Amino acid sequence: MVGGGEGAFIGGVHRMAARLDGHWDLVAGNFQSDPAKSIAFGKTMGLADDRAYADFRTMAESEAKRADRIDAVSIVTPNSTHHAIARAFLDAGIAVICDKPMTITRKHADDLAEVVIRTGLPFILTHNYSGYPMARQARAMIAAGELGAIRIVQVEYAQDWLATDLSGNKQADWRSDPAKAGPGGALGDIATHAFQLAEFVTGLQAQSISADLSAFVPGRKVDDNVNVLLRFGEARGMLWASQVATGSVNGLKLRVFGDKGGIEWAQETPETLLFTPLGQQQRIIRRGGAGVSPSATHATRVPGGHPEGYLEGFAQIYADAAELVRAHLEKRAPNAFAKLAPGVADGVRGVKFIEAAVASSKNNGAWTPVD
Amino acid sequence: MVGGGEGAFIGGVHRMAARLDGHWDLVAGNFQSDPAKSIAFGKTMGLADDRAYADFRTMAESEAKRADRIDAVSIVTPNSTHHAIARAFLDAGIAVICDKPMTITRKHADDLAEVVIRTGLPFILTHNYSGYPMARQARAMIAAGELGAIRIVQVEYAQDWLATDLSGNKQADWRSDPAKAGPGGALGDIATHAFQLAEFVTGLQAQSISADLSAFVPGRKVDDNVNVLLRFGEARGMLWASQVATGSVNGLKLRVFGDKGGIEWAQETPETLLFTPLGQQQRIIRRGGAGVSPSATHATRVPGGHPEGYLEGFAQIYADAAELVRAHLEKRAPNAFAKLAPGVADGVRGVKFIEAAVASSKNNGAWTPVD
Amino acid sequence: MVGGGEGAFIGGVHRMAARLDGHWDLVAGNFQSDPAKSIAFGKTMGLADDRAYADFRTMAESEAKRADRIDAVSIVTPNSTHHAIARAFLDAGIAVICDKPMTITRKHADDLAEVVIRTGLPFILTHNYSGYPMARQARAMIAAGELGAIRIVQVEYAQDWLATDLSGNKQADWRSDPAKAGPGGALGDIATHAFQLAEFVTGLQAQSISADLSAFVPGRKVDDNVNVLLRFGEARGMLWASQVATGSVNGLKLRVFGDKGGIEWAQETPETLLFTPLGQQQRIIRRGGAGVSPSATHATRVPGGHPEGYLEGFAQIYADAAELVRAHLEKRAPNAFAKLAPGVADGVRGVKFIEAAVASSKNNGAWTPVD
Amino acid sequence: MVGGGEGAFIGGVHRMAARLDGHWDLVAGNFQSDPAKSIAFGKTMGLADDRAYADFRTMAESEAKRADRIDAVSIVTPNSTHHAIARAFLDAGIAVICDKPMTITRKHADDLAEVVIRTGLPFILTHNYSGYPMARQARAMIAAGELGAIRIVQVEYAQDWLATDLSGNKQADWRSDPAKAGPGGALGDIATHAFQLAEFVTGLQAQSISADLSAFVPGRKVDDNVNVLLRFGEARGMLWASQVATGSVNGLKLRVFGDKGGIEWAQETPETLLFTPLGQQQRIIRRGGAGVSPSATHATRVPGGHPEGYLEGFAQIYADAAELVRAHLEKRAPNAFAKLAPGVADGVRGVKFIEAAVASSKNNGAWTPVD
Repeated sequence: MVGGGEGAFIGGVHRMAARLDGHWDLVAGNFQSDPAKSIAFGKTMGLADDRAYADFRTMAESEAKRADRIDAVSIVTPNSTHHAIARAFLDAGIAVICDKPMTITRKHADDLAEVVIRTGLPFILTHNYSGYPMARQARAMIAAGELGAIRIVQVEYAQDWLATDLSGNKQADWRSDPAKAGPGGALGDIATHAFQLAEFVTGLQAQSISADLSAFVPGRKVDDNVNVLLRFGEARGMLWASQVATGSVNGLKLRVFGDKGGIEWAQETPETLLFTPLGQQQRIIRRGGAGVSPSATHATRVPGGHPEGYLEGFAQIYADAAELVRAHLEKRAPNAFAKLAPGVADGVRGVKFIEAAVASSKNNGAWTPVD
Repeated sequence: MVGGGEGAFIGGVHRMAARLDGHWDLVAGNFQSDPAKSIAFGKTMGLADDRAYADFRTMAESEAKRADRIDAVSIVTPNSTHHAIARAFLDAGIAVICDKPMTITRKHADDLAEVVIRTGLPFILTHNYSGYPMARQARAMIAAGELGAIRIVQVEYAQDWLATDLSGNKQADWRSDPAKAGPGGALGDIATHAFQLAEFVTGLQAQSISADLSAFVPGRKVDDNVNVLLRFGEARGMLWASQVATGSVNGLKLRVFGDKGGIEWAQETPETLLFTPLGQQQRIIRRGGAGVSPSATHATRVPGGHPEGYLEGFAQIYADAAELVRAHLEKRAPNAFAKLAPGVADGVRGVKFIEAAVASSKNNGAWTPVD
Repeated sequence: MVGGGEGAFIGGVHRMAARLDGHWDLVAGNFQSDPAKSIAFGKTMGLADDRAYADFRTMAESEAKRADRIDAVSIVTPNSTHHAIARAFLDAGIAVICDKPMTITRKHADDLAEVVIRTGLPFILTHNYSGYPMARQARAMIAAGELGAIRIVQVEYAQDWLATDLSGNKQADWRSDPAKAGPGGALGDIATHAFQLAEFVTGLQAQSISADLSAFVPGRKVDDNVNVLLRFGEARGMLWASQVATGSVNGLKLRVFGDKGGIEWAQETPETLLFTPLGQQQRIIRRGGAGVSPSATHATRVPGGHPEGYLEGFAQIYADAAELVRAHLEKRAPNAFAKLAPGVADGVRGVKFIEAAVASSKNNGAWTPVD
Repeated sequence: MVGGGEGAFIGGVHRMAARLDGHWDLVAGNFQSDPAKSIAFGKTMGLADDRAYADFRTMAESEAKRADRIDAVSIVTPNSTHHAIARAFLDAGIAVICDKPMTITRKHADDLAEVVIRTGLPFILTHNYSGYPMARQARAMIAAGELGAIRIVQVEYAQDWLATDLSGNKQADWRSDPAKAGPGGALGDIATHAFQLAEFVTGLQAQSISADLSAFVPGRKVDDNVNVLLRFGEARGMLWASQVATGSVNGLKLRVFGDKGGIEWAQETPETLLFTPLGQQQRIIRRGGAGVSPSATHATRVPGGHPEGYLEGFAQIYADAAELVRAHLEKRAPNAFAKLAPGVADGVRGVKFIEAAVASSKNNGAWTPVD
């Protein structure tokens, strides 16, 4: 692992997610930019002395030479550093699990895509919400034509933790600093999740978007509210992401309507998917219940009614990553469902989306291509 | 009543709404364009022979001359006819209760506004959703500053009854005919309700909008899906209205977020309003329950937990109209809460909104003023 | 109408319910026990001078002699007076609409049943919750075998308005006075509704019950919490009714489980019925929506998504009563669905239930027959 | 671990729960009664050869002698075997984590209680539902007096997986066999969870109960539906547990009403707790949100809105067990919140409850003490 030291949030989540299914052990890391602190933190994690590293480049080089080298690195640092770290490990021949957004520039995104394609190394991007069983259920139903031709996509991601000025809060500070977070605030932090989920579930790609970005909190240097119209070929969509929507917690929600049916799924109540076939009664499709797709079952640990949640969805990405890495090491094709884990292509789409949204908003909402 | 004869939908709703609170009796009408059918229908409604009229002009003139003349006319015809009918009754000195949208052109809307202002006659527009107690509760809370400065307005109105081609269905046909419905389909039929509700509750006016209108069902001449971005001064908003959102029934929903709190209200579960003061626990405010505003209590008939719904909300507009008409006849100021009933100004806003949305969409989403 | 004068609650509800569908006009009444107040109240209701009566016996006799006599009387007085008033009107040959519980003794209940059977006069008991479309939908589904053999019945009715001592509150006082309310408090006021709904929907009759009644508020003379086990032949059930369940408003809820399916319906969200066929996905059956029974459609006014509620359910009893009375006057069979309105047999069951519950509770929960 | 081999359900859950927080490693086990299969299964779990045991007695004795002996054993076998296994490990001086119900006889339960008290060894019973943060929040609020004096306890646990005859299903078979499961079916399997949760949250103990047990599925030897009335001193309660409630999945739900407030919590939506202070607006208390107790925060991993669920609640019991075991080994007082983990006293209560329910039901519902 690179990142995730003292005071970090998402590093601990990655570690729990990696541990849950028993596929991964944490054996090496560079947890903080301060070398001494990184080494000290590694010891609290129970690492061997020689595998708590002072910097990520040393870690990549040293691990590459070991017989018991790491199978993959997990990168959980601020956005601006993802590219250099990912590149260092890929260059050392080590698979990468990277937090999103993948990079803060299009050039860096394309560069990682080129390396991944060239080397064939596994690269997993932790758009964790696509690890939820019912998100995969929705994707399977749409792919099977149960919704017919898609007409409308409504996706939103509402939070309120940045509704006030949180200067001094470590998590808020780096996310609000364009040098660390990139050009988007809510845009990079959460709108990219919403965008990825919409494309993942529908199997469509947005061709162009029209965006209206706002920064409501005085002094904030990046957007905290994102209003976007989308065009996916014939289909039309709206995406709203906000970190100042008072009373919202982690409200990622997707609705898709086709000419034969419609679905609705919300991350805060992830166990059920509402499905209405046109002209019929609405059904509640439940994780572990009747009529569930094999891809959703693949992502299921315990029976329905025993709620799975955020950590299980996140763990699914790690479980899928384990299968992709094992298959790579064993030179075999991976389980088909493991390939649902998001990868470098999702990362490139996310960066394109950020750049198109920023450009459109600066250009008074002009429709701007996402390519 | 003008309109609402055999095969009509909304006429029967108006009659139940008018009856519920005992303020109105139906004593005269011109129910259909066919004179003989209109007279026959009037008899089934129990009208006196001389008050079941063959046409609306005769009705306006005849009623104006009677000692027991009607206190008001209720107009429940297709949109394109509202102006001429309303004008006829206003010119005869009779108060008007009119269905929405008020007219199909800006010119006609301005004309009615001019006459209403000049004559001082009561004019009530049945944006019935603003008659719900919890919609009025929301308005009162925002007016009292409980949400602080408004930042975000999210409003939507999703149906699916036009998801397929319904040619031959009377209700669908006139709504899909620009000559009868005006330039908007879902735009005039339901997006205007969403727009009025948003402005009613927030007390804000949208300065400009960017719209993307679609007609998904092949052959449909008017929009059936409406995606709009809104700017209300500093606040930002999104409005979605659709009649092809498979699985949706009558999904009007409003969320408003300010710097001190946020609220959420949905027409299909109208008895409760979710309210979160920033940083505090979310509260469920219930019609008839603790902490309810006098304006919501004014619109309440039975205790909380005994669900009121669509007809009661609609009846509230009629109850308020009764008070406005009585006060006018008695030359006194009406009850302050009755003045919450939508009127000619809401009608003008609605027509402006339709025209701006059509213009913006034709102009590839250019931001277009609503004035 | 008898009862429902100044300060009353349910009288106003009956009047709105009677008015909504246009079947009834209020033309005569004895609204309060004080003669002068009754007459004065009648005038505020717009009655003719000679039909605002000083006492109910005079009203019954006088109306019986008029050519334009009332078609039915609506009795909305405290429970202890129902029998004498109902008897007076039945004896005068006038149909009765009576609030529940029907009487406060078994003897009086049997007496009314005898008179109703002997005279053939319409007698409707306003167990209004069985007027809800989705309650009738549930009944139709069970009658059609969609749930298979019924195994389990869970019914509850939770309120909290009597959680504290409300001495001095008119509504609370008579309900807490055994002389006026009968031997049951929550038992007569709300548990009878729950019991009637359970028997109405399932088509089963409870053979015996075991009850544990409590009065939690110090000084209260009647129960305010009712715990009951039920046996319906093979099926087993539980009934809970409380007026001290803090935070509950009007929580009447019924769940029925058979060997082929299960349903759930709650009065506070009356528009939908949850249905799970064994081993299949749960469905949301919506008033006005797909797969709805003719008996539910009969009880429907406006399309799904336009919420109907308490007053509409109550109005359905009045609409059904109108049909039963008209059919009686016209000497024809009534519409089959109108016969779903609760009648004297439901009244007898309710009184038997009250007596059995009181007896069982006094006997430390001994299983006691309901017959 | 003892139990949890091939084809088992709950063993895998225990292993995930133990792993999630990183406190436990699986290093020894006797997974199945067949020695060869147990050893083979141990190898698939990555155990050292000498720690995959052929039988539990050998395991207890061998582990007791090792320097790197296990810190605790987790017992996940059918109910009838719990006593002997737990006794073997306690006698060897090893802490025990045991699935529920603790034993199938009162004598065995008392015996384990005696040993645990005598030895001071940690003994944790996996009533996992009391590991949920919001269950602990409810307990903290009641202990702090926020509900006032408790009047009413309503608890239910509804499933439907045994709605048909599942003979041949391994999980169903042992649970329906009195020799393995004990005298209760749904009673032991799920009603004990409901009972424990009710006592845990309220801090009350039921003095006596009246039970009506049924076996609806033909041929079933144990109950599959449990209706119980409860008396907790002044407070009254109802408990319903069913494994034939068609359409139910894992519906454990608790409602508690006091003279100052009421709460509601459901396991299938575990992130929120509804709380109504008497006469005030209902509040939604959210894990990780405003106003949450330290004991709930102690049981929290990720921020609110990132759903935690069944495995996290279960993991909390393992995390608390780790603290209790560490404190025991380090001869110090454990963290106060860790002591919320259920123990041998809960186990004794559960067995008493089962015996009282069986006795009451046989005695036609006679009120029977739980002591």
